[in-house]
Amino acid sequence: MACEFKLTRQVEFSETDAAGIMHFSNIFRYMEAAEHAFFRSLGTSIHVAEGDLGWPRVHVDCDFKHPLRFEDLVEIRLLVREKREKSIVYTFIFRKLNEQPAREVARGTLAVACVKRDKDGGKMKAIPIPAALASKIEVAPGELFDSCV
Amino acid sequence: MACEFKLTRQVEFSETDAAGIMHFSNIFRYMEAAEHAFFRSLGTSIHVAEGDLGWPRVHVDCDFKHPLRFEDLVEIRLLVREKREKSIVYTFIFRKLNEQPAREVARGTLAVACVKRDKDGGKMKAIPIPAALASKIEVAPGELFDSCV
Amino acid sequence: MACEFKLTRQVEFSETDAAGIMHFSNIFRYMEAAEHAFFRSLGTSIHVAEGDLGWPRVHVDCDFKHPLRFEDLVEIRLLVREKREKSIVYTFIFRKLNEQPAREVARGTLAVACVKRDKDGGKMKAIPIPAALASKIEVAPGELFDSCV
Amino acid sequence: MACEFKLTRQVEFSETDAAGIMHFSNIFRYMEAAEHAFFRSLGTSIHVAEGDLGWPRVHVDCDFKHPLRFEDLVEIRLLVREKREKSIVYTFIFRKLNEQPAREVARGTLAVACVKRDKDGGKMKAIPIPAALASKIEVAPGELFDSCV
Repeated sequence: MACEFKLTRQVEFSETDAAGIMHFSNIFRYMEAAEHAFFRSLGTSIHVAEGDLGWPRVHVDCDFKHPLRFEDLVEIRLLVREKREKSIVYTFIFRKLNEQPAREVARGTLAVACVKRDKDGGKMKAIPIPAALASKIEVAPGELFDSCV
Repeated sequence: MACEFKLTRQVEFSETDAAGIMHFSNIFRYMEAAEHAFFRSLGTSIHVAEGDLGWPRVHVDCDFKHPLRFEDLVEIRLLVREKREKSIVYTFIFRKLNEQPAREVARGTLAVACVKRDKDGGKMKAIPIPAALASKIEVAPGELFDSCV
Repeated sequence: MACEFKLTRQVEFSETDAAGIMHFSNIFRYMEAAEHAFFRSLGTSIHVAEGDLGWPRVHVDCDFKHPLRFEDLVEIRLLVREKREKSIVYTFIFRKLNEQPAREVARGTLAVACVKRDKDGGKMKAIPIPAALASKIEVAPGELFDSCV
Repeated sequence: MACEFKLTRQVEFSETDAAGIMHFSNIFRYMEAAEHAFFRSLGTSIHVAEGDLGWPRVHVDCDFKHPLRFEDLVEIRLLVREKREKSIVYTFIFRKLNEQPAREVARGTLAVACVKRDKDGGKMKAIPIPAALASKIEVAPGELFDSCV
């Protein structure tokens, strides 16, 4: 049973913008990268080319506290906040590691639904999370969500 | 005084992902494109190369109701939800136009702070929105936020 | 029979980088946007969700003469350079319109193959361009490729 | 003296497109990531926030042999092809590692100029590569460019 996962990334130049900081939209690509690495750590993949299982995002958000710049080292910590029959809610806590002490720079959410995709029309229908996968995921204890500023 | 702005875009192939739909992170690029076009409609620009005024995002979110696909026509409607001394909160309502009736596919938020950037260190400090700009922006009436499903 | 197409775009903030200019990789997204709009102008689409026809890129290149910045207005001119049985080569000429006289800022190439995708394995096999489409496309006369500096 | 550098990446979902493969424009972000990691391996950075040195791209190209898909493991091998007074040309060889034997899937070029940026207007002027940096970089021997299919 896993309730968290950590991934470290370094901000790339193509992720910055003319304000000299990481473009905010990339924070969601970082969340997703951690989510997918979390799935791989469970021995599975979030996307199987021939498969019909999908995980569309239902709600996403992020609060930004400090900007990230080119070559900053960022820890992305995924925490399972809620686990329901047909959906999962993750919290992501971002810390900038190349400063001492490392401080929280952003915190966000991905709420994802488990769906079956209709192969022809591409329509999606919410389904229960497959048992083999659900049995590996558990909600993280509350203290892990405390601020790590 | 302006309280809203509309922009229409067509989903590009490079914005889609292997699930066959627009990658969710791009919805925030769409919000920002509407925000910047709104500023241009007010006779200004959100970013002046030599300037020291900036608009970092403090909070962003989005709720997704229906997926967008390649070549879908999307109306992005910006509404000014809150206007404070040093920040603005926008709501964005996305409608898919190439279906009749056009339906709401997503709704999101950008909460942005007005800051002065320190030229050397790049540090940001919240400042009041310049009067010339603030005088052109007003909060949208509540009924404009009603669902347009 | 069409041999060229023009599209105008305005550089978005999310396309810039910390050097204050458009990140070079986006020039290829611009080329592709023009290619897809060209296909739409011919009454078709480059990508049909249920279809098995694809246009993978075999070779791409770009020469950069002048940088593009946020809010620059860019004309993307697509010219059909070669038309073969199973592939097309396009030249793209980029001009910055918000300067007088408008000058060429970049010039690039997309060489694309027409393929049939195997639905299950996703494998691609080069096939002749469908006659209905091939009949609408012709090679642009040489003088259109002259520099427009 | 260094003439090459290797970086391994895993294709992310946000880098794929509706054709189920990595969008071709991302190959240039991969090249740049390897270039910047190469600079870090030399004890420097390609971009110093307060600095006025820049490395705009003058010419870039890529030949694609096989598509990359979500979660493919990719080796990016940077080779210094040419070193001139004011510019460097790199070759990048991409190999897909999660197949045996690993095969070359793409090969490309970044030709970059060393420039001094005018702080106010943002204008760029080609300058000689600083000696401290130039002394660390050398051209790779020809046999390293042989195909590794």
